[in-house]
Amino acid sequence: MGKVFEIAVIPGDGIGPEVVAEAVKVLNFVTNGGENEVNLTNYKLGAEHWLETGETLPEETLENLKKHDAILFGAVGAAPGDTRIPSGLIEREMLLKLRFSLDHYVNLRPSKLYPGIESPLANPGNIDFIVVREGTEGPYVGNGGSVRTGTPHEIATEVSVNTAFGVERVVRDAFARASRRERKHVTLVHKHNVLVHAGHLWRRTVEAVAKEFPEVTHDYLHVDAATIFLTTDPARFDVIVTDNLFGDILTDQAGAITGGIGLSASGNINMSRTYPSMFEPVHGSAPDIAGQQKADPTAAILSVALMLDHLGLSEESKAVEQAVEKEITSRQELTDRRTTSEIGDAIVALLA
Amino acid sequence: MGKVFEIAVIPGDGIGPEVVAEAVKVLNFVTNGGENEVNLTNYKLGAEHWLETGETLPEETLENLKKHDAILFGAVGAAPGDTRIPSGLIEREMLLKLRFSLDHYVNLRPSKLYPGIESPLANPGNIDFIVVREGTEGPYVGNGGSVRTGTPHEIATEVSVNTAFGVERVVRDAFARASRRERKHVTLVHKHNVLVHAGHLWRRTVEAVAKEFPEVTHDYLHVDAATIFLTTDPARFDVIVTDNLFGDILTDQAGAITGGIGLSASGNINMSRTYPSMFEPVHGSAPDIAGQQKADPTAAILSVALMLDHLGLSEESKAVEQAVEKEITSRQELTDRRTTSEIGDAIVALLA
Ligand SMILES: CC(C)[C@H](C(=O)O)[C@@H](O)C(=O)O
Ligand SMILES: CC(C)[C@H](C(=O)O)[C@@H](O)C(=O)O
Repeated sequence: MGKVFEIAVIPGDGIGPEVVAEAVKVLNFVTNGGENEVNLTNYKLGAEHWLETGETLPEETLENLKKHDAILFGAVGAAPGDTRIPSGLIEREMLLKLRFSLDHYVNLRPSKLYPGIESPLANPGNIDFIVVREGTEGPYVGNGGSVRTGTPHEIATEVSVNTAFGVERVVRDAFARASRRERKHVTLVHKHNVLVHAGHLWRRTVEAVAKEFPEVTHDYLHVDAATIFLTTDPARFDVIVTDNLFGDILTDQAGAITGGIGLSASGNINMSRTYPSMFEPVHGSAPDIAGQQKADPTAAILSVALMLDHLGLSEESKAVEQAVEKEITSRQELTDRRTTSEIGDAIVALLA
Repeated sequence: MGKVFEIAVIPGDGIGPEVVAEAVKVLNFVTNGGENEVNLTNYKLGAEHWLETGETLPEETLENLKKHDAILFGAVGAAPGDTRIPSGLIEREMLLKLRFSLDHYVNLRPSKLYPGIESPLANPGNIDFIVVREGTEGPYVGNGGSVRTGTPHEIATEVSVNTAFGVERVVRDAFARASRRERKHVTLVHKHNVLVHAGHLWRRTVEAVAKEFPEVTHDYLHVDAATIFLTTDPARFDVIVTDNLFGDILTDQAGAITGGIGLSASGNINMSRTYPSMFEPVHGSAPDIAGQQKADPTAAILSVALMLDHLGLSEESKAVEQAVEKEITSRQELTDRRTTSEIGDAIVALLA
């Protein structure tokens, strides 16, 4: 018997709606005619929506989103120069609020150098790793403050909060993913020589969880050293597990070395499935090129592949990934760049 | 009238003594015969010293170090597998203790792609920027802890502490340095959309200090975006100012794109000169190649150049930098790699 999957779609701002349109095109195509049905519901949220209504993420909207099986997210954020929107407001009150409220503790970000894509690295090698970034703790918890603000005596703090519960579940997820991969290797990235308390919790947890996965090897890198290896030898990585902030930094660098974050997909995953997971391209709303059909929808389409996999539709997921890979390779033969919708169309054609 | 400069030398562990020997060779040569005198005093500190004595940095040693005009530092740290030394102990109780006790609030790290050096980037462009990393605050203050440690209910925190006093002095230093450079541009790197309190203190401070330097332009990048630009367009940077942790991460990446941290010098500078500043290569003690004359002493020698400049010996500083640049270029004509001491000798010969 087929299932009906209820998918919430949040196109957002800037290039969000454009890339999401292509992602939806692919999602509809790949599920159409199969035994399962996909039912899409649009949600208007983001900087534009805030300007119109003053709403970031109302409780009611959040409750409605919780009823879905998954969320497809575009991008949010105002133009950098737009002073009408308090800086970081939408990011925190909407994007991060979703990740935290829906307990997206696995922020999954695959990094792959597709054949035909030029890396800014001279000798990139065979880049194919995933970053399992913790998504609900660390310096992202919003635990900090300032006193004597605006005076010469101001003190501002930011507190990174790490729990055994939170670290263990994401580390176990990383090892589980590694055990299903060819190289079966986990690299913990932290900075335990300076961030002693959090660092040791992460290290101890990795050592403990590693025992449950005797087939998986593991090592450790300080975050500064990790940026070096991502430059000189990224092919060494298989699965990186790291905290929320280090994961943010490393996945942007990972996007850059694999040809730009226009190709980087991500899943904000609640592995215990208490709430829907959310799938989004790593890139932002890029207001400067919005509405011009210049944005690459590949990251959004690969996010659909991650979503399909999470929903148990692994064949459809693989089909999308393979079509994306073929579309990327076929770009080499073109003289003109494909527009946003041409890329979506090409992928659909390859799926047909 | 000439001056006598009292320099403390801490060779440290691993390749530290080897590279420091070359740095001292160059320092002695370039100051010899001039009107100033350099007087060197050796201090034995580091992992080896801890294994022998149990001492990291005794109060008395610290007091003695304070009497010098500057400190030349090699590298410290045990071999990664050495379990006799508690992890991070030497780094925190000795290296970071020096930076904090001697109020090294400007951690200056220049990044330059020297002609003849191959970058791992395919199109590196003309890389020539400096990072002004805050050195006495941020997540490095050691303010954190854990409760229910080792239980499933453990909570571990790390607190980033930022003060108006601390941020302002380092931001002012960055603008002052920018005003003496050709492009006169400062980029603040932070993550203010998430680390709101610290981020806003940094941003407000940059806006305020910028008014004192109308000739200097400035912009802002989130740390994740900064790693992208360090990959795709590092030539865009002139002066980066950032906090202690982001600076740690970005300067390792900067070292990588300019041909490896074997060439990256740094100054831990107390600009108010209440205590001696300390000059050290960015690389670590590299125990795997220690004692084999394989280490590149260039970073240590360039650190001497930074030291000379800080001591007011700007001609000598420039001479060392130019000799280093020539030595690097001359490597292209060689079939064999120069040993550690051959590099020192070659630089001395160029200075002669
Ligand atoms: C927009 C921002 C809050 C977000 C983050 O820091 O997580 C983004 O950089 C990302 O990586 O998804
Ligand atoms: C050894 C370590 C404590 C140090 C740091 O994190 O500052 C090092 O990485 C550096 O960059 O000098």
